[in-house]
This record gives sequence, structure tokens and C-alpha cells, in this order.
Amino acid sequence: MASMNHHYTELQDSYLFRTIDAKVADFRAAHPDADLLKLGIGDVTLPLPPAVIQALHQAVDDQAVKETFEGYQAEVGAPFFRQAVQDYYARNGVELEQAEIFVSSGAKDDLADLLDIFSRGMTALVLEPAYPAYVDANVISGNKLVHLPSSADEDFAPYPDPTIDADIVYLCSPNNPTGATYTIEKLQAWVEWARQKQAVIVFDAAYESFIKDPSIPHSIYAIEGAKECAIEVCSLSKTAGFTGTRAGYTVVPKALVREGLELNALWVRNRTTKTNGISYVLQKAAAAALSPEGQAQCAANVAVYQENARVLMEALDGAGVWYSGGKNAPYVWMRCPGGLTSWEFFDKLLEEEQVVGTPGSGFGQCGEGYFRLTAFNTPENTREAAKRLAQLCSRLA
Amino acid sequence: MASMNHHYTELQDSYLFRTIDAKVADFRAAHPDADLLKLGIGDVTLPLPPAVIQALHQAVDDQAVKETFEGYQAEVGAPFFRQAVQDYYARNGVELEQAEIFVSSGAKDDLADLLDIFSRGMTALVLEPAYPAYVDANVISGNKLVHLPSSADEDFAPYPDPTIDADIVYLCSPNNPTGATYTIEKLQAWVEWARQKQAVIVFDAAYESFIKDPSIPHSIYAIEGAKECAIEVCSLSKTAGFTGTRAGYTVVPKALVREGLELNALWVRNRTTKTNGISYVLQKAAAAALSPEGQAQCAANVAVYQENARVLMEALDGAGVWYSGGKNAPYVWMRCPGGLTSWEFFDKLLEEEQVVGTPGSGFGQCGEGYFRLTAFNTPENTREAAKRLAQLCSRLA
Repeated sequence: MASMNHHYTELQDSYLFRTIDAKVADFRAAHPDADLLKLGIGDVTLPLPPAVIQALHQAVDDQAVKETFEGYQAEVGAPFFRQAVQDYYARNGVELEQAEIFVSSGAKDDLADLLDIFSRGMTALVLEPAYPAYVDANVISGNKLVHLPSSADEDFAPYPDPTIDADIVYLCSPNNPTGATYTIEKLQAWVEWARQKQAVIVFDAAYESFIKDPSIPHSIYAIEGAKECAIEVCSLSKTAGFTGTRAGYTVVPKALVREGLELNALWVRNRTTKTNGISYVLQKAAAAALSPEGQAQCAANVAVYQENARVLMEALDGAGVWYSGGKNAPYVWMRCPGGLTSWEFFDKLLEEEQVVGTPGSGFGQCGEGYFRLTAFNTPENTREAAKRLAQLCSRLA
Repeated sequence: MASMNHHYTELQDSYLFRTIDAKVADFRAAHPDADLLKLGIGDVTLPLPPAVIQALHQAVDDQAVKETFEGYQAEVGAPFFRQAVQDYYARNGVELEQAEIFVSSGAKDDLADLLDIFSRGMTALVLEPAYPAYVDANVISGNKLVHLPSSADEDFAPYPDPTIDADIVYLCSPNNPTGATYTIEKLQAWVEWARQKQAVIVFDAAYESFIKDPSIPHSIYAIEGAKECAIEVCSLSKTAGFTGTRAGYTVVPKALVREGLELNALWVRNRTTKTNGISYVLQKAAAAALSPEGQAQCAANVAVYQENARVLMEALDGAGVWYSGGKNAPYVWMRCPGGLTSWEFFDKLLEEEQVVGTPGSGFGQCGEGYFRLTAFNTPENTREAAKRLAQLCSRLA
């Protein structure tokens, strides 16, 4: 009799965004003509930058003729891709060996797959509010979860609690969902905590390209000693518009050793056993996005989303609503006005203003009473949604 | 203290193909001018078919402008992709629901990832000789392994042993490495075994497009009752030349239930938690490969490899060497002449004839004394390699 992984039955009934989709579908069915504006799931709307499109077409042409045809790629990443990531980090002041850089299908894939090199039943520390996949991937693995709630008092970017022990901790800066960023001092405290506990930091840097404030680090490796305690997971989804194109990268430093095992060697073995690498075509596209020319084009797209965030912040400022994020992040994390719960505000915003956002309680208990807005819609839709949002906030104030 | 997965240390020192690469690199260093011919790793050499190239360019153009830009795809697979796979199966006489079809990055990825829905510590039955990734993925998961060796007496495609119990069994037909195929009668016996034991068959159909004999099933679902006991893992790597492009599909039937859990629902939850789906661009390419036009072009490429296999078989026939495979598979599995071990023959073939193949003992103990040749090189190289192979075999006879 096949024995199944019953931890799946411990997962909450449905993933947050599937619940939202169901509510929106119900609303659409009841109001087929409604002009619905979505500031919910963080999907980009601008097309891929020209340098990426050009690299894609060129790579496809390579696959069309024998002389340039590419078969299996190295599971860890093609040399040209690792070089592009290495150069990108170097331009940002972080020196990495190419062997420390791994190609991925994106941050979500590697955040989950990385758990495979850790012991089952270990303890994962999740700073809440948090991206739900951190929690769900650990539930599936049968791991223990410790939650460290955060609040507006600490700008939703807490210092470590020295009484908490864990095998790994997830740090996400700029944060999804709160848009909060970790200062050098806070990251130093976390690196110190991880080194003392011999824990591993999984640093989710998916939104690093949205940082405007030059004092906020883009990489955990800007912190002294981080290579001895941290894995960094990165994505091109928001940076370069790759949500539907899929490519990212993960850094596992060679200096990271636990229980006598080099995590870099474990990850090499994981990749070579469990994958055949990432598409040549996509790696060419990703390398183009990370090139200086590609980065300039990506920055222009990011600036559009940053302006959207500014429009949302302006609306909330006008309505006197507290929020974090927006300045160095594509997310604005607002306090629900009128003392509403997250789902009450979701329903009101959907029904009264036809705007879709994400209830903060979906990201952990301490997110109750908060609401996430994303800056990824078009400028026109964002301006209209901001106007409607301000109207509802004023009515509720 | 982070607690690591120490099962990685139980893996053999190095993956088979890495050992071969190291030996070849040493030989090249010592003989920089040698004209080395590779019939080793099964990587394709023909470029992507025109219909696939056209679909790739079109999909890239879609990503270049706002109006057609595609963001996140459904984690389980885009509707157009599921439709293409459903139609492909229907043309081959197998009816599937779209919800039973999942997109993947390729067979190797899903063969490993599927273990996540089973209990850790379960028992996996591996029919040897076997693709090494089956074994390694289970070692990493801390599962128990049961090996069922096979031999030339049963054409390397054994019937089930009713005394063996297991949670899952891997069946690969046409087989890697032996090129053996399972007849309807043998597959019926395995389906019967799995239903009696309430085990799950993981059917690896990566080489189904090489089947010429119309009596050999392309899918396990050609067998009555298979939907209640089998998952099918497929690849476009060899069918459509996707080794470096990456896309495949996996079928998890809704009728497959174990311990009260629907495996289809578990896999949906796995995909939605741990991935963000597969690139829109690659799914468009895969759908084009599976279209009637794409299939005709793929068949023309497969015919080139089939002719290579024929050339290898002819050389072995001439030298009086026993082999399996080749007729319905891109692999020819030959008995090492002169009573040599697999690695002895590898070394001789490399040093005396500058041809690289794969030692049979790398696929399990019962592969000792056998050797795998692949049909994926160019026709010119294959003819030359076949000549050299025949020379060595004649010297050893």
C-alpha cells in the first residue's frame, strides 16, 4: 500500500490567492459589467525590456540550426549565466564565486526546494506577516514552525528575539507583504543571531531592485559574515517582468557549513540529481536582463511601478491612513480604516469600489487589520484605483 | 544549529555521468588531438523543428508588447498546453481530462519532485538496470530501496515478482539504459501487481516516440485499470529535441487514490505551493511540438536517430555481439565482448578507439558486463563510431 505524505492535509484549505480568485469570480458573476481594478496579486503588466526580447529571439535562432544548437545545460547554470550574475553582484559591491551562483526557475521554486537539503522535522522561523509559501512548504515537509510577529511599532521589520531558536529563518527585504525594508543594523543583528545559533538565513531578495534609499542593502552579503550563515534567493519576476517567463538565481556561499556539511556541495548534488537545469533560451534572456543595457531598461520599468506606489501613498496620505512600504518596495501595506478586519475591508473595497487588494490576515495573524496593495497595475488603473480607495477610506474615517 | 539532510552523504561519490566526464577530460588532456566520438550521454544533436522555432519566436513577440504580454501562468499548466497534451493522447487512443495533465520542466524534475507527495521512508522498487536518478532521489529522501535485477533471459523487461512489496515502482519503457520495451502482457502484469499491492507505478515514457512496433504501448494508460495505479512522466527532450529547451508533462489520473488521498489533488497542491509554473514561451513551444504539424517534423528527426541505432545494431550484428534495444529505442545495450567488465570496456573503447559510451554497471549491479550506446550523435559520427566499435569487438572476440 503506497504510503502518502499526510502533511498535505495539514495545509489550510486553500492558498490565499485562490480564495481571493473565488471571491472575485463570484463578484464578477453577480456584476458582469463592473469595472474591476486589481491591486491584488503582484503580477507585472509591462512587457519584457527590448534587450531581453532581442536575446530571446537570438537564442531561439541558435536552437534552429545544428551549428549553434544547445542541448543539456549544466544543472547548476550555464557559465554565461553565472558570469552575468557574478558581474551584476560585483557592480553592486558584492564579490561572489561563480560556483556559488545557481540558476533557478524563480524564487518560489527554490524557496521550497532548498528545504530538501535540511533535515525533515527541523524548526523554521517565519517573521510575520509573511509570504504564505514559506509556511506551506514547511508544513508539507513536516517541519516545526515558529512565528515571530511584527507590528507597526517596529515598522514591520523586527530585530531578532535572542530567546528564539530555529534551524532556518526567512528574511524578506524589501518585504512581501509589508514593503518594509531591513536596515544595515537590523540585518547585522540577524547575521549575529544566525551565527550564534548556527542557524541559516534564507534571504528573499526578490524585490531588491525597488530599493531607492542608498542606505538599504540590496543583498544580505553586504553584511560582514553573512556568507557564513545565509543563502540568498533572487528573482527576475519583478525586476525584469519575468513572472510568466521564469528565471531567477540563488546564491549558496561556499563558506556556509553546518554539521560538517558544505551547503553549496549539497545544493550541487540536489540540482544534478533532481533537475536538468534551466532552458538555454531563458538563461540567455536572464543574462540580458542582468547586463548593463538590460538593467537600464529594467530600471525604466521599475520606475513606472515606483510612480504607481507613490500615487497610492499620496491617496492614503490624503485620507490620513497609516501605511508602511511603497518607498522602497512595490507593496503598500495600509492599516484598514474604521477598525475593519482585513477581510471586511476586502469585501467593502470590492463591493463598493470594485477594487481588489489582498487581506493582511492572509499573511499571518499579526496582519489582521491591515491590507496589501500592489503597484503593478497600469498607471491609469492605479490612478483610478487610488481615487476609489481614497473615497472608501474617507467614508470609513 | 541548522540540522541538515545527512542522506546526501549516503549517495555514491559522484553521479555516473560526472565520472565519465572526468575520465574523458583526463583522456583529452593526455591526447589533445584525439578525434573523440561520443555515444555516451543521451543528448540530442538535431536542432528544434521549424514549427517549434516559429512558436518560440511568436511567443517572444507576445512578450514584447503590453497587449499580448503574459504574466504568471497557472502552476499546473496553461490551458492551451493542457489541451495540446490532451489532443496528443487522444490521437494515440488515450482519453485524459485536462485536469489530469500537468506541465513540467522535464521528466527528471518531476520524477524527483513527485516523491514529495509520498511518505518519507517508504519503499521504492527499482527495476535494474535503471536510470541512476531514480535511486539517488530516493536515497536523498531516506526511502528504502528494493532492487529487482533483470537479465538477457527476460530481454531486460521483467515480470513482477509477487513476493516483493513496495510503495512505488519505476517502469521505464522504452527503457533507459537497455532499450528494452514492455509488451502489453508485461504491463498488464505490472498493473495487476500494483492494484493488488495498492502500490503506485511511476511510468517513465520519455522515449515513447522511438517505438516503431505497433504492438508496443506508448502509454501505461493503454492498459485497462492503469489510471487507478499509475502516474506517467513524459518528456519532449528526445521526442522534440528539448534537452536544452526544457518542457515536459506528467499525468496524475483522478482515479488514483491511496490512503484516502487523491494523488491528483496532492500534486495540484504541491505545484501551487512550490512553483510558479513553466515559462509561457516554453509552453507555447511544447504545444507546437505536440501539434500534428510539429509531430510530423519531430518524427523526421526521430527517424534520423532510429537510422543511427540501425547502424550501431548492424555493426554489432557483424561482430557477433549480443544486444537489446535499438529497434524501438535510442539506446543499444550491448554485452561487452571478451568477458570484459563494463568499465574495462569503457577504458578500452576510449583509449583504443576514442569512442565514449556508458558502462552498464553504472545502472546497477546486474548491468555489469554490459555497455550502453546512444543513437543521438550525427549520422556521420555514428557511422565512424560504429566502424571503430566493430574493430574493437572483432579484436576482443
